[in-house]
Amino acid sequence: MKKRVEDFAFFGGEKTFQTPLHIAQVNLPPWESVTSAFRGIFERRYFANHGPIVRELDARFAEFVGSRHAVCVTNGTIALMILAKALASSGEVIVPSYTFPATVQALSWAGLTPVLCDVDPETQMVTPETIAPHITPHTSGILAVHLWGQPCAPESLESLAADRGISLMFDACHSIGCAYNNRKVGNFGNGEAFSFHATKILSGGEGGCITTNDDHLAEKLRTIRSFHPGETFVPAALRINGKMSEAQAALALLSLEQYPQNKAANLRRYEAYRLGLAGIPGVSLLSFDPDTDNNYQYIVLDIDESIAGIHRDIFFKLLTAENIICRRHFYPGVHNMPPYSKMEATVKSRFPVTDRLCQRALQLPTSQVMTEADVQMICELIRDIQAKADPIKARVSDAP
Amino acid sequence: MKKRVEDFAFFGGEKTFQTPLHIAQVNLPPWESVTSAFRGIFERRYFANHGPIVRELDARFAEFVGSRHAVCVTNGTIALMILAKALASSGEVIVPSYTFPATVQALSWAGLTPVLCDVDPETQMVTPETIAPHITPHTSGILAVHLWGQPCAPESLESLAADRGISLMFDACHSIGCAYNNRKVGNFGNGEAFSFHATKILSGGEGGCITTNDDHLAEKLRTIRSFHPGETFVPAALRINGKMSEAQAALALLSLEQYPQNKAANLRRYEAYRLGLAGIPGVSLLSFDPDTDNNYQYIVLDIDESIAGIHRDIFFKLLTAENIICRRHFYPGVHNMPPYSKMEATVKSRFPVTDRLCQRALQLPTSQVMTEADVQMICELIRDIQAKADPIKARVSDAP
Repeated sequence: MKKRVEDFAFFGGEKTFQTPLHIAQVNLPPWESVTSAFRGIFERRYFANHGPIVRELDARFAEFVGSRHAVCVTNGTIALMILAKALASSGEVIVPSYTFPATVQALSWAGLTPVLCDVDPETQMVTPETIAPHITPHTSGILAVHLWGQPCAPESLESLAADRGISLMFDACHSIGCAYNNRKVGNFGNGEAFSFHATKILSGGEGGCITTNDDHLAEKLRTIRSFHPGETFVPAALRINGKMSEAQAALALLSLEQYPQNKAANLRRYEAYRLGLAGIPGVSLLSFDPDTDNNYQYIVLDIDESIAGIHRDIFFKLLTAENIICRRHFYPGVHNMPPYSKMEATVKSRFPVTDRLCQRALQLPTSQVMTEADVQMICELIRDIQAKADPIKARVSDAP
Repeated sequence: MKKRVEDFAFFGGEKTFQTPLHIAQVNLPPWESVTSAFRGIFERRYFANHGPIVRELDARFAEFVGSRHAVCVTNGTIALMILAKALASSGEVIVPSYTFPATVQALSWAGLTPVLCDVDPETQMVTPETIAPHITPHTSGILAVHLWGQPCAPESLESLAADRGISLMFDACHSIGCAYNNRKVGNFGNGEAFSFHATKILSGGEGGCITTNDDHLAEKLRTIRSFHPGETFVPAALRINGKMSEAQAALALLSLEQYPQNKAANLRRYEAYRLGLAGIPGVSLLSFDPDTDNNYQYIVLDIDESIAGIHRDIFFKLLTAENIICRRHFYPGVHNMPPYSKMEATVKSRFPVTDRLCQRALQLPTSQVMTEADVQMICELIRDIQAKADPIKARVSDAP
């Protein structure tokens, strides 16, 4: 506990952590299993173009998700671009403003016009109610986002899309292994895009995947994924180099084996955060609907300044100075960011919920390298910052 | 030597090679140097987002090329997309039809309209003469391709682009380490896009890079390359996940060290092909302008059926059956391929030279795993096929 305000690193005190705690440092498989897999790649001298390990990952991830098809690609953004290009060749796609900018920009790369919508204040995600007002004759699809591992209203959105005759895609980058009423993410809408980035619970260092239960869509996705004639070749609007390498696939396969233990470790840290943060005025940890299954990869706080007496941004500054690398996702909201902030075709409405969340959300680190004691230390710092709200605010406003 | 026509594998004889000889199997660094580099990545637990090895490769590749900036990215297609997006936000870009489809499709992903042009019959590349007729008030740029390691008329194209006030990009995916009048590829036009794919002389397993001498363009490229705020952030039309991973960069750095020996080995195999193919009627090996410096990564034949007495496609079939994986690049020409074959905005003219090359070009394998004896065996097969042209043709037309 920092006894005095000047003990905080932001004001010149010693940093709580010597090395930075990153938001979600990669879950590493054992080194021996990695060198063994890489040795095989070297012996085959086959690195790219859908080698045997990528094919195995395609099969194993489909099995894990329970979908008919999994099409592994370079990264999550490319997954979204390929899915959008395969499903909707023109027109408007409705997408939340409260998301990582890649969700929206992938639509632009695919030649579509993103139309931003607001989100529900409870779930922080889109609902039929936040989307419906934006549907016009130009709408070709919806791109919903499963945020923080939560499934985004999949059944009601499927009904809406079917009623309106438009396509439904999900950005499932956060939601590897998650489920809604025992139906696993990866089986909703027309198709779902995943990320296997280093910050994800299942990681290929970098990587991505598209899942679908639609055989024809799967053929299109595989055709778009590379310029090489593959097992499937169907007419496609455009193709791209979206190939996953053997090295990425080898890491992701090992990571998939580790999924249960990584999820269990995430849950232990989540519980430690929940206990550690209990009772801090104005600070609440995002909790999850009991009908859903979460991967607990995301530790997200909601900070209500009117109760905590101190703004999220001050927590952010002070924690960062302690080497706790936190994130103000998704500040300032895609509708306030270039290139969309001035595009009337994309920003057609107001975004009160997104604006509010962008002022209050704070994502904290959780990773394989962190102990439960680290989590307790972070929670104590947060408790301490809130308890010293007034002197900290006075001092911050004096700071250069 | 196959004594009888039925000795060719295509007609049921034994394959000349037990395992397939691929077109350009990856040049591998020593396994120990790779595990050592990868061990460092594991210890840092830092895989993505411009880590220390990517930064080093950016610096080292710029030094190698002699350009002010090198911006390493996921792959060659993404390099072209980012370069095109940074240089030309709308309008038409003139590009050869005689190229790998990625060159053209990258422009479409970047929201531009590719306008295809024909190539010069001697160099197989664009010239001011093949481009100029397509320049209109809608033209925003030229994307020229350095084919088979040859520099594509860089100085005359620079004059043309400057005169017309349009941008000039190069697809330099074939031309790592090549030069024109002692000026290295990577320094021409506004910017150049490279590939570090497994089939390239310098390989990261997969990878790509953009080089430029324009400081402002470099900032734009770095901004577009990822969604993360980096060292530079300037207004950009769109951003993408174009990040190279630490693993890719580690392999590419080791491959860069090996460049001189890989080039020397390529040259030895090229010379072996030249000797082995000498005097075969109608079969000529592409030779290079003595004022240029080539990496000899591409063994490309021109097969003149009127002299050889046998079409390129029959050589292709027979060699493939012998496990010699050759390529009919770039058959049938981008103007004859979807999605462009029916697009009037893109296919505005006729392409007699491209059409002819697409019927005659045959790329043969060359790689680290091949011995000079392998090359001699391939040359003998080619000599043999030409010598037995008539009985082979008769038998092929009977084949199922």
